[in-house]
Amino acid sequence: MNDDSRWLAAAAALAARARPLSRPNPGVGALLVKDGRVLARGWTQEGGRPHAEAVALGLAGDAAHGATLYVTLEPCAHQSPRGPSCADLICAARPARVVIGCMDPDPRTSGAGLARIRAAGIAAEYLHSPACEESLAGYLLQRTQGRPHVTLKLALSLDGCIAMASGESQWITGAEARAHTHAQRARSDAILVGGGTLRADTPRLDVRLPGLEARSPTRWVLTRGTVPEGWNALPSPEAIRDMDAVQYLFVEGGAGAAAAFLKARLVDRLLIYRAPILVGGRPGLGDYGLCALSQAHGRWSLVERRALGSDTLEVYSAR
Amino acid sequence: MNDDSRWLAAAAALAARARPLSRPNPGVGALLVKDGRVLARGWTQEGGRPHAEAVALGLAGDAAHGATLYVTLEPCAHQSPRGPSCADLICAARPARVVIGCMDPDPRTSGAGLARIRAAGIAAEYLHSPACEESLAGYLLQRTQGRPHVTLKLALSLDGCIAMASGESQWITGAEARAHTHAQRARSDAILVGGGTLRADTPRLDVRLPGLEARSPTRWVLTRGTVPEGWNALPSPEAIRDMDAVQYLFVEGGAGAAAAFLKARLVDRLLIYRAPILVGGRPGLGDYGLCALSQAHGRWSLVERRALGSDTLEVYSAR
Ligand SMILES: NC(=O)c1ccc[n+]([C@@H]2O[C@H](COP(=O)([O-])OP(=O)(O)OC[C@H]3O[C@@H](n4cnc5c(N)ncnc54)[C@H](OP(=O)(O)O)[C@@H]3O)[C@@H](O)[C@H]2O)c1
Ligand SMILES: NC(=O)c1ccc[n+]([C@@H]2O[C@H](COP(=O)([O-])OP(=O)(O)OC[C@H]3O[C@@H](n4cnc5c(N)ncnc54)[C@H](OP(=O)(O)O)[C@@H]3O)[C@@H](O)[C@H]2O)c1
Repeated sequence: MNDDSRWLAAAAALAARARPLSRPNPGVGALLVKDGRVLARGWTQEGGRPHAEAVALGLAGDAAHGATLYVTLEPCAHQSPRGPSCADLICAARPARVVIGCMDPDPRTSGAGLARIRAAGIAAEYLHSPACEESLAGYLLQRTQGRPHVTLKLALSLDGCIAMASGESQWITGAEARAHTHAQRARSDAILVGGGTLRADTPRLDVRLPGLEARSPTRWVLTRGTVPEGWNALPSPEAIRDMDAVQYLFVEGGAGAAAAFLKARLVDRLLIYRAPILVGGRPGLGDYGLCALSQAHGRWSLVERRALGSDTLEVYSAR
Repeated sequence: MNDDSRWLAAAAALAARARPLSRPNPGVGALLVKDGRVLARGWTQEGGRPHAEAVALGLAGDAAHGATLYVTLEPCAHQSPRGPSCADLICAARPARVVIGCMDPDPRTSGAGLARIRAAGIAAEYLHSPACEESLAGYLLQRTQGRPHVTLKLALSLDGCIAMASGESQWITGAEARAHTHAQRARSDAILVGGGTLRADTPRLDVRLPGLEARSPTRWVLTRGTVPEGWNALPSPEAIRDMDAVQYLFVEGGAGAAAAFLKARLVDRLLIYRAPILVGGRPGLGDYGLCALSQAHGRWSLVERRALGSDTLEVYSAR
């Protein structure tokens, strides 16, 4: 990884701060760097404005002259009623160089942002950055495939159960794992459970972490039926194509909903909270139409493993 | 851990070489140390003789004078038709000091080994050593509780399945995990599966590792019925109390046999081979009579985790 890639990865880490408050805009990160030192940082603000570049350039003022601007996503080329385009702001601020980690698939910008900056005589280049792509996964999937990024969460015992045979399901995992789940909810735009879980547990699905209560995402139920007040119905996994405002969907089970999303091949990321207990009860995943064991292999890559109290969190991404 | 504890742990690691060929005797390890250097090493030989101490003392000859002898188990005090007692051998070799990691519960030795050595004017002490105890777990359980040490192995998918709904079970885990399982078999005195697995898979349960084929343990089936030629029937988990010659029993499933052993609280060690796949099929563990989730917690401690190809091995010990 060269220096440019590292600065882009740092900008991507910064972009996490914009998630999910930047909606409807993508959460972007920007860094202004001169002589190997950070002059200013920015990320998309609440409601989508100001943009990350505008924040960083505003903080740096004249110091931006001759610096390098790293941005996770191509700067926008279109004016909006809410302000000038970032490409124009950059042209005015005159950094020596601009490096971006993702091209913007938005047809109003795609390529036009870079072109405008170059036309002003500023060196501007796109450098493929997996970290930037990852940080914009929800936005990119909406733009390219018309659906949100889907994380499937399973809280399981060693033997893969989400509940006892009696239905008792509180608690498999411990307090640390549950707090981590709440933090994941706070980073999502929507949460979903299956109709069975709604009927069995009537879960609140809100964010119960001090200071983050207001971040509770919209609540959805996968069901062929109707839903109570305060909930949205999703009639099938494929119907996530209608969730236009949702970049990140967090699916919390149960076994039937998990199987339905896997069957539709609509799971991008798997979060497994594993408790060191044996239950011998209800499996956490229903039949999802696998035809042969050989087909199950090679679909998931482990990207992270960490201890949460006595539980273990494993994160897998779809290959 | 002081130096004595470290040398005892090294002797315990050596003792692993005696497993399981030392039967009917326990696998013992011995180290002769002088001025911080190892003079000689020994472990119980095939069929139980010579003992570990006899091997080490024999190799060291006169150099044993004034050295320290570390032994995982109290030296035997009883003569046998197969040779003199180790306590007598030690008295003749005259090391300066003897340190042992476990007292021998065998009534013919218990305390008498140490006493005989001390009576000869040699400093001899017992130092509690978890590593030595662990290395002798099967022997100690037979002597104190009249049953073998039981390891339950489960080869599972992320969602805890051992097979597809159709019954297809080859393969969940990869070649490295299966080779590791064969090495575990080679370290056991007996292997067991449930009657269901015998009927479904007619497994060979032998050791298919180059050079270790002859180490294949005796094969057992948990069943209320009869067994084919070449197999032994175990009518209930509790009947392991009749397995006098077995120090280490390796239980390889399936779901019913695993549940039966857990229900009887006769599992000392859990080996989970986990493949990074989702199956949505048959659970690896049946109902084992858990009354409440709270009772499932706190029973298992993670003692080891390692990657085996793309699979993960986790070892848990019962608390
Ligand atoms: N430990 C954990 O992480 C965790 C998390 C969640 C739940 N749980 C436990 O899981 C259990 C519930 O699991 P479950 O499998 O019975 O129920 P579930 O997965 O929550 O819900 C199944 C329901 O989802 C709907 N559904 C499934 N596939 C669909 C499709 N393709 N299109 C439209 N709707 C679809 C149907 O709802 P309708 O019948 O309404 O049409 C179906 O009945 C409870 O015991 C709960 O406590 C545990
Ligand atoms: N992936 C793996 O690690 C793995 C390992 C092994 C098996 N498997 C799979 O597991 C499946 C078989 O599992 P399963 O649950 O059906 O069968 P199982 O556990 O192998 O055997 C169940 C049988 O064990 C006997 N049994 C159970 N409890 C008993 C008790 N308390 N006292 C006496 N006998 C008792 C009974 O045998 P009788 O009916 O003969 O009396 C019972 O039918 C197969 O699909 C196999 O491929 C997978």
